[in-house]
Amino acid sequence: MTVELISVGTELLMGNIVNTNAQYLSRKCAELGFSLYFQITVGDNEGRLCEVIETALHRSDIIILTGGLGPTQDDITKESVAKVLKRNLVMDEESKRLIDDYFKFRFQGEKNTIVTENNWKQALKIEDSIVIKNDNGTAPGSIVEINNKSIIILPGPPAEMKPMFEQHIFPYLKKKQNKTFVSKMIKICGIGESRAETDILDLIEKQSNPTIAPYAKNGEVHFRITAAADCEAEAHQLLSPVVNELYQRFGENIYTSIEEETLEEVVAHLLIDKKYTLTTAESCTGGMLTGRIVNIPGVSDILKEGFITYSNEAKMKYLGVKKETLDQYGAVSSQTAQEMALGAAEAAEADAALAITGIAGPDGGTKDKPVGLVYIACNVKGHVTVKECHFKGNRQKVRDQSVIYALDLLRRSLK
Amino acid sequence: MTVELISVGTELLMGNIVNTNAQYLSRKCAELGFSLYFQITVGDNEGRLCEVIETALHRSDIIILTGGLGPTQDDITKESVAKVLKRNLVMDEESKRLIDDYFKFRFQGEKNTIVTENNWKQALKIEDSIVIKNDNGTAPGSIVEINNKSIIILPGPPAEMKPMFEQHIFPYLKKKQNKTFVSKMIKICGIGESRAETDILDLIEKQSNPTIAPYAKNGEVHFRITAAADCEAEAHQLLSPVVNELYQRFGENIYTSIEEETLEEVVAHLLIDKKYTLTTAESCTGGMLTGRIVNIPGVSDILKEGFITYSNEAKMKYLGVKKETLDQYGAVSSQTAQEMALGAAEAAEADAALAITGIAGPDGGTKDKPVGLVYIACNVKGHVTVKECHFKGNRQKVRDQSVIYALDLLRRSLK
Repeated sequence: MTVELISVGTELLMGNIVNTNAQYLSRKCAELGFSLYFQITVGDNEGRLCEVIETALHRSDIIILTGGLGPTQDDITKESVAKVLKRNLVMDEESKRLIDDYFKFRFQGEKNTIVTENNWKQALKIEDSIVIKNDNGTAPGSIVEINNKSIIILPGPPAEMKPMFEQHIFPYLKKKQNKTFVSKMIKICGIGESRAETDILDLIEKQSNPTIAPYAKNGEVHFRITAAADCEAEAHQLLSPVVNELYQRFGENIYTSIEEETLEEVVAHLLIDKKYTLTTAESCTGGMLTGRIVNIPGVSDILKEGFITYSNEAKMKYLGVKKETLDQYGAVSSQTAQEMALGAAEAAEADAALAITGIAGPDGGTKDKPVGLVYIACNVKGHVTVKECHFKGNRQKVRDQSVIYALDLLRRSLK
Repeated sequence: MTVELISVGTELLMGNIVNTNAQYLSRKCAELGFSLYFQITVGDNEGRLCEVIETALHRSDIIILTGGLGPTQDDITKESVAKVLKRNLVMDEESKRLIDDYFKFRFQGEKNTIVTENNWKQALKIEDSIVIKNDNGTAPGSIVEINNKSIIILPGPPAEMKPMFEQHIFPYLKKKQNKTFVSKMIKICGIGESRAETDILDLIEKQSNPTIAPYAKNGEVHFRITAAADCEAEAHQLLSPVVNELYQRFGENIYTSIEEETLEEVVAHLLIDKKYTLTTAESCTGGMLTGRIVNIPGVSDILKEGFITYSNEAKMKYLGVKKETLDQYGAVSSQTAQEMALGAAEAAEADAALAITGIAGPDGGTKDKPVGLVYIACNVKGHVTVKECHFKGNRQKVRDQSVIYALDLLRRSLK
């Protein structure tokens, strides 16, 4: 079964809003094991809308349209589908009643409660279509079946579209799918995307079921392994050897195989398991690392305090970095990073400390110490590891990568 | 001139990422005064990719493709464009050299530094195309001109695509537009989107030239005012009364009308003008506020150090918050926020200090102090203003909003 999404709305084409509906529906289709090959966005223009509906009907089994169901003359999604299918629009009495109720209920005692003539347009349905009730607005959805194909029409606002999809469309589509899909996400840190793919090129090339799909994220590489089977147990059986093989090849570079788990959560759990507390000493990242760690709920068990020591004076005052070290090696040096990590742990009485000092740019670089040079020091119970990194990109990117590498260094040190 | 966007990437069709590139490019095309009628998303599949490129060439003047320029076998955007145009791919020696440099530089002295065979694929260019250098990655972009049409190929990662678009593609496209478009971005902080829109509904309703387009960002509202004219002077003349009217209505809530200027930059400039230094004391934001301020190059003139005081002990130890204050009013209170802001400035010997303490959730809320309650204190030369905020949304959103409100509070205090 192939699915095609058509998002309708000039506000999308103007870039006024980002198309989160497309992401949501794509994810749901992947969950259902459908193949989604095209996402189309088109404005509220009858000619162009009819063109994309016709193309979609030609090449896809299920077409999901969102948007263009409002009460104004601009909104023409239903009208365009009806035109392409050569069907009439007829008044749906139940929808009419619900719209009437909605206005009465919502605007109780307010002015401007009158249903305008426009609103009745929303109660029109395509002949022989299934009308889907909208619990969160006045635009009903609908399903039109024709020659073993389905056209699904949904309202554009996510707060109306999503509940309607969950309640009515997902179960409708599930009946069309007889396979079960199970997937695992293997998350890797510390090696680049092309290196990671090269390492498993043979697996990627011979993949069929399960499939292996790589996703690069800033400083990380994720592989999604998906198996299709008749039941969940069988899907897990198919997944397991491939997942094991990836663990064989990437070893410690894999930080999790749990979809929702982030790098900072993995690090936090390692700390909690060991009953270790953590502190931080940040120079060029200026709080970003700690800010990310603090995004984990309940982090107060492991993190009590952190130091943002942007100036040399602050590095000496709070972390006890020696003046001689700064004079001899500079603030951006392995030696300073090491002293920062040692001093932070001592000052905060923490078991572990992460320190970052580097040149994020755009200025401040020299031939010996170019922009992008960052030293990351990780202190676990007095044992310090320092990593010299050379990052590319603008100030923000250098700082983003520094944070990820610091978290990864701590993860490896705790293992 | 009509533009069509083609986003390439299976990760978009799987719903793993949201297509922010489409929004960004659509907005830029609107700014340039081009008509964008179709946004297409397609996977890394040659047949389907060629199909959409052919369709786009048929109906649009400018085609912008993003994604599918990576080093793996999956990445086939250039190959597909070459196939449709019946052109060859040839090695671009300059790109090859840059990729070689990139790897040498980045992985200096590390193992696994070898450029894999895959990477050279990125140095291939379509015959007779203009190669666009990528300052933030290894995939160059390109422009192919054919029969008065332009095909523009850009890398998928936003951090690579956006700078390339700004620097090279925007000026290239601007030359194709004979109307001059000038726009101003009015950036507002401290009032909500619907309130802001209601305040200028009359202006929005009667708009034609200049146009007024609202953009809501987390905690901020931006209005883009765009005038089209035959020359720049005329466009400015059209803009000015509308911009003045917005300043009349929103007053101090407007923090800038300069497109690139961020809230943290406005605050930094106010501090620099007054020769004031700043420090921070963060609890629930855990470094995010300072991390954002440090994103400004040259921030060392105003910010020397900051305090991440997540625990009560740290609030007492570094900021001198009194135990009685914490016992009597709690860590999340106006009193604690005030003492944090006073203590931080004293400890860091800074002229100004921002302090944040709040309940970001998901746990820790009570009836009296619910999740989303955040106190922000701003100390300028000993004069402290405390703001009690009630934010909505998840942990990340509460923290994001806290950062924006803190910056805005400092901005207003410095004015």
